[in-house]
Amino acid sequence: MPELLPRARASSESIFSQMSRLALQHGAVNLGQGFPSDAPPAFLLDAARGALGRWDQYAPPAGLPILRDAIGTDLGVDGADVVVTSGATEALNVLALSLYGPGDEVLMLEPVFDVYLPQARLSGARPVTVPMRLDDVSGWTLDMDALQAAVTPQTRAILLNSPFNPTGTVFTPAECAELVALARAHDLWIISDEVYDELYFGDKPTSFRTLAPERTFTVGSAGKRLEATGWRVGWIACPPGLAPMLAAIRQNGSFCAPTPFQVAVAAALPLARESGFYEGLRAGYGQRMSLLASGLRQLGATVFVPSGTYFLTARHPHWTADTLVRQAGVAVIPGAAFYAQHAAPDGLLRLAFCKSQPEIERALDSLSRYAVQTPA
Amino acid sequence: MPELLPRARASSESIFSQMSRLALQHGAVNLGQGFPSDAPPAFLLDAARGALGRWDQYAPPAGLPILRDAIGTDLGVDGADVVVTSGATEALNVLALSLYGPGDEVLMLEPVFDVYLPQARLSGARPVTVPMRLDDVSGWTLDMDALQAAVTPQTRAILLNSPFNPTGTVFTPAECAELVALARAHDLWIISDEVYDELYFGDKPTSFRTLAPERTFTVGSAGKRLEATGWRVGWIACPPGLAPMLAAIRQNGSFCAPTPFQVAVAAALPLARESGFYEGLRAGYGQRMSLLASGLRQLGATVFVPSGTYFLTARHPHWTADTLVRQAGVAVIPGAAFYAQHAAPDGLLRLAFCKSQPEIERALDSLSRYAVQTPA
Repeated sequence: MPELLPRARASSESIFSQMSRLALQHGAVNLGQGFPSDAPPAFLLDAARGALGRWDQYAPPAGLPILRDAIGTDLGVDGADVVVTSGATEALNVLALSLYGPGDEVLMLEPVFDVYLPQARLSGARPVTVPMRLDDVSGWTLDMDALQAAVTPQTRAILLNSPFNPTGTVFTPAECAELVALARAHDLWIISDEVYDELYFGDKPTSFRTLAPERTFTVGSAGKRLEATGWRVGWIACPPGLAPMLAAIRQNGSFCAPTPFQVAVAAALPLARESGFYEGLRAGYGQRMSLLASGLRQLGATVFVPSGTYFLTARHPHWTADTLVRQAGVAVIPGAAFYAQHAAPDGLLRLAFCKSQPEIERALDSLSRYAVQTPA
Repeated sequence: MPELLPRARASSESIFSQMSRLALQHGAVNLGQGFPSDAPPAFLLDAARGALGRWDQYAPPAGLPILRDAIGTDLGVDGADVVVTSGATEALNVLALSLYGPGDEVLMLEPVFDVYLPQARLSGARPVTVPMRLDDVSGWTLDMDALQAAVTPQTRAILLNSPFNPTGTVFTPAECAELVALARAHDLWIISDEVYDELYFGDKPTSFRTLAPERTFTVGSAGKRLEATGWRVGWIACPPGLAPMLAAIRQNGSFCAPTPFQVAVAAALPLARESGFYEGLRAGYGQRMSLLASGLRQLGATVFVPSGTYFLTARHPHWTADTLVRQAGVAVIPGAAFYAQHAAPDGLLRLAFCKSQPEIERALDSLSRYAVQTPA
């Protein structure tokens, strides 16, 4: 038999799929993978039902013009600079294929979202990660000096995520300005993964696009915004003039995003904005985050309160993701899964609070029963 | 500003998107891009409506188990050997990334479907094409000697398409056996693009998988089978044991196919089989094919009657795709668009008959008016 390529043999099931599988197997509450327990809003479902039977054939690879315009209006960019993708994961892959290749380096922060590394490697480039600092008092902080020091003549791009999964960090306007200055000084592309742009608990996050429109690609997700992670509608807002080239690369992947859902998202984006849907989302998740954070603290965990995303990170001296899913009936993601080039902080865990309040309560009950059984 | 990669700058809008755009611009009947005018069947639409609001979050990258099993049952393989993709285009891209890379060659036949070449190049491999023979009496025929002669020690795979877009060829069982013998003799993977597996007008096509299950990857498409090209549900049936590795590569692209449509296709595949939907599809397209073929012959074209797909190829001494869309009000695809390494036959055109009967009649009317205006 012929051989598979090393790059195929080296790929493996993601930690998120693994933990969802273990959760099912052990009947555990799933605070692992980041998908909401709630159904998408009625205005989105109704729009999709209306599109079925009428908008069922291929869309242009760059996206339906009505959706490109709706995204453009929402973000404050020209619809002609928007490329629609089959989810944000594909958006990131299209950027990896378009912006760097063999001999290039891409800067990222660690903890690092799992697809960033294999996507960079599939493009032929070398991912270089710089660790975020973590201490129990100040929580997660950005180490600008380490980032500066990691730039080489081969660096082509910096991949940033704000709000940041898994740390929950939202970069301050001052940090954003420093990051943009770094990119300008070394002529780097900025890939800004902003899929949690509407999920924040303090000040509205700064979008890098507003500071450096000439070099920033903004990645967004209708699935994260509108609670439909399985609908596969994401986007890239490009620097002016570059959308046609990205669309041409993009047609070699999934060709186009699902047409009926493009129509539905085009209708839903202005409705979400006008109806205060995102405010409701933030309020609801803010409550569940507080519930989970205070419950975890009572059980002896150190909690790093997030400023955005629907995840929180925490440390506990006696917990591991593996024993929690098997013995406590709660699936979480081990912090080590987000570390590839540096050592993970001891006992770090990521917990998703995009779950229903009863699920979070059940998880806390299970953890407290487990805590009683396991002497410190 | 930083530079885009050469591979991004070299990509351009596909001929299908281009002609669809020109069709719209010139108010032309669109016999170019291969998407049906009919809506998907009610049993598929109903299943999708039922899935919305219940199956809206991430699916596993390999696909929902119910869909993998439904595809497996339909094809006669184990569901565990099936990987679900966001359309067949992504399936082909996952295979390109998994099976070959720098230094490898991939054999293909010319005329060649447009994404095969850039996908091979994005993987780092070199596509090598062998032309089909064409003459006005025997139509399209396979040149086994030329194919044999094109194999080198670097050849890793052969990419075949039967029923074959754009020629309409369905390889005979004898040809399939010869192709499999070639693959075995040189230890090549067989990538068999069978998206038109249910669209044939004579004997049922032989699937390469049944002859060489150990080395054949079968690519299929719910969009082509069920008249929903915009729903983005395709699949790969893999040699035993290889699905997990392809699923791991695949999660770097669109992560998963749209979940509600996976549920709908899982329900629809057995219904399509039991209800005789495919027989109805073949009968309907067979009629429209005859209508288009005889109309074109009356206007002086040489028509190569297809044994499968919903396309036919034809030659006309005075027609070009560019003048037809601008002056005759009919969009078709120039044959030259399917040729990259060899010369295209003079005057070759591809016409889609997956359109309504009134559209085909309108196209023939427009062509006959154009024929009267343009002296031979």
